[in-house]
Amino acid sequence: MKKVKIALLGLGNVGRGVWKILNSNKEEIMKRSGYEVEVAKILVRDKNKERGFEVPKEILTTSFNDIIEDDSIKIVIEVIGGIEPAREYMLEAMKRKKHIVTANKMLLATGGDELFERADKEGVMFLYEASVAGGIPIINGINESLTANKVERLYGIVNGTTNYILTKMDQDGLDFNDVLKEAQEKGYAEADPTSDIEGYDSQYKLAILSSLAFGTKIRVQDVYREGITKIESIDIEYAKEFKKVIKLLAVVKDNYGSLDLRVHPTMISETHPLANVNDAFNAVLIRGNAVGDLMFYGKGAGDLPTGSAVVSDIVSILRNNIDIYNLNPVVKNNLWEKEFYDINEIDSKYYIRLTVEDKVGVLGEITSIFGDMNVSLRSVIQKGLEIKNENKVTLVLVTHICKEGNVRKALEKVAKLDSLYKINNLIRMEDFE
Amino acid sequence: MKKVKIALLGLGNVGRGVWKILNSNKEEIMKRSGYEVEVAKILVRDKNKERGFEVPKEILTTSFNDIIEDDSIKIVIEVIGGIEPAREYMLEAMKRKKHIVTANKMLLATGGDELFERADKEGVMFLYEASVAGGIPIINGINESLTANKVERLYGIVNGTTNYILTKMDQDGLDFNDVLKEAQEKGYAEADPTSDIEGYDSQYKLAILSSLAFGTKIRVQDVYREGITKIESIDIEYAKEFKKVIKLLAVVKDNYGSLDLRVHPTMISETHPLANVNDAFNAVLIRGNAVGDLMFYGKGAGDLPTGSAVVSDIVSILRNNIDIYNLNPVVKNNLWEKEFYDINEIDSKYYIRLTVEDKVGVLGEITSIFGDMNVSLRSVIQKGLEIKNENKVTLVLVTHICKEGNVRKALEKVAKLDSLYKINNLIRMEDFE
Repeated sequence: MKKVKIALLGLGNVGRGVWKILNSNKEEIMKRSGYEVEVAKILVRDKNKERGFEVPKEILTTSFNDIIEDDSIKIVIEVIGGIEPAREYMLEAMKRKKHIVTANKMLLATGGDELFERADKEGVMFLYEASVAGGIPIINGINESLTANKVERLYGIVNGTTNYILTKMDQDGLDFNDVLKEAQEKGYAEADPTSDIEGYDSQYKLAILSSLAFGTKIRVQDVYREGITKIESIDIEYAKEFKKVIKLLAVVKDNYGSLDLRVHPTMISETHPLANVNDAFNAVLIRGNAVGDLMFYGKGAGDLPTGSAVVSDIVSILRNNIDIYNLNPVVKNNLWEKEFYDINEIDSKYYIRLTVEDKVGVLGEITSIFGDMNVSLRSVIQKGLEIKNENKVTLVLVTHICKEGNVRKALEKVAKLDSLYKINNLIRMEDFE
Repeated sequence: MKKVKIALLGLGNVGRGVWKILNSNKEEIMKRSGYEVEVAKILVRDKNKERGFEVPKEILTTSFNDIIEDDSIKIVIEVIGGIEPAREYMLEAMKRKKHIVTANKMLLATGGDELFERADKEGVMFLYEASVAGGIPIINGINESLTANKVERLYGIVNGTTNYILTKMDQDGLDFNDVLKEAQEKGYAEADPTSDIEGYDSQYKLAILSSLAFGTKIRVQDVYREGITKIESIDIEYAKEFKKVIKLLAVVKDNYGSLDLRVHPTMISETHPLANVNDAFNAVLIRGNAVGDLMFYGKGAGDLPTGSAVVSDIVSILRNNIDIYNLNPVVKNNLWEKEFYDINEIDSKYYIRLTVEDKVGVLGEITSIFGDMNVSLRSVIQKGLEIKNENKVTLVLVTHICKEGNVRKALEKVAKLDSLYKINNLIRMEDFE
């Protein structure tokens, strides 16, 4: 049996998963790759930290030089995350002709070009299946299985934390802040949850996925982004009335060469396959002009699922069945030139929740503003009850398909009405048509 | 731009899809493969047949020799189906150093060894993504993305015809025969529907998928098989009472090295992701010891979805990123030695529907037979109403987990009771635990 030495940079959550899989599934990996994989070195900050699992002290090192200068190490696994020193370490390792496997979505989405260029120049492989949607092989799916298709749409639930929060709010009728607190206590959400709940994490992932799917370089700032912090229980109750659920959806649509790229809470039919993607599960649905709708579903995070994607990349490198030319330029260069939509230009249906004064004529005033802006209303719901005896009522409007810019202009006018207390929420509705 | 010539064997449903995709998505395929693909020859039975789409007469041929003797043709696409002459043609083409792409599940499941051996010997690539679940890239998923995992379970809805029939029966409350007739009229079921409705098609597909997933040669006869012809509306009504749906499920479980392989109608919870796989859609759920549950969902048949899988194989050959050593031996040789379960040895829960005489003591008689056989009953439902005033009633038993052999022995005894009119159905229930 041939042997290969590899090194891990980082031994956090994902690093632990990789380490565990390489040990517990040693025989599978040997038979499938033809190699016995030896973890020769692991870069850590503190060699003496209590880790809760067994790892030989002698392979831990606090010095990156120990790894970079060991020519017997052929593959470096970057699972530190963040920009620096991950970027610097990977560039250095490639210079020494080491292949790279990374799970680093942030670096790929913001500074990927440099890494792909260096890999090309040095003739090493650079794989990143684990960077999006954990254990789901979506990168491989796009790069290898959708090659016969024009991709028309891509919809993803790619952030487990927000999906867990929305699932709990939906199933248990809890408020956002209560569920967030519970998620933090359970370790499903970080102490600073901004990256997840404000949609940044999904934005990175959509930039990576759509770069690959549409063969054009997409920057993070090309993706419109909204988080889930404005979703209240009452919105979820209305969604239920409409037989819908609310998901933080990453969406991209190719409209004759213009890409409509966005991440925002979205109401979708409760019978759609994405509606049953609950808790920390992720899913990506891709519509190709040949294959139709194709969905990949699985665990989007966690040490073992993410580790599974990292180790499958290691096996791919060992099998040497990656054609660098065909994988990397998709991200590095544009195969196609695309335009990008401004959020005002997109077409969608909208759910709009307002709090208004409970008096005669308000409804007519508001609906005529929407009419003036060419926003056709499908339904207007005013529940009979006042809010806390304060002479306020909730008004929910649902539009037909219209331009978002028109909706926004209408809401600007509505905001100036004396009878308006608050524009509580605007949630896009997706029919997947 | 480099050019490559290929030939199609067959221009039926899948052949048409391949032809259409190669034409409509020419630019995508060129950019992604680096090649302009030219269909140089298409083998057909009748050059003058009206096909309903444009294809130049001059590339049609009725002679396989025209293709085999043309050394400029580098890839042969077999979409004739069936055993002969598909087998003979592929073996001959490989001898002439042509790479092969096939969609032929029957041949792969029954005579695959010979083809894999020949491909190895001749040093040509032999790809078959389209053979299982149409457009869903499940072969690639198992072969390339699950390499870090011990596969523990695999559950598939892999036959579109039966899934369409069961969906219609469920949603519209129709009888099996009525839906089958409608499906035949719409072209969703063949004139002789045996292969689909009796589960043979799913059996072939499960043999292929589980050979790959478990790294051991699985013959069709290793897979226990039951079709859907015994499912009646009343069974679907009971399933609804239990908040379940009935699906024709292909199942394989690895219990410490013994494989439990079977295809049969199965009651599954209506909230499970597989329960929402409706109409002609297919899905395969794989449980790996690292990645957890991973599901692939999409169109399992149709000219364009299946063509999409065929063309992605062509692109893989052109990219030359397939390592023959690592793909083929999984089917050809055993990576692992496995035992196979006899159906009597499996553990499951069961739904059993009987028609019995409506008289005192029958219920006790029957439940005590099950008790004697160590089959613990979870519930016994006897609806108050007689059947058509004939002094017959329906009795539905639901068991806890038990050995199938014990259930069968109990039913043999029940069959001999004077008070029994008919054992109507036995349907296994799956909890995915």
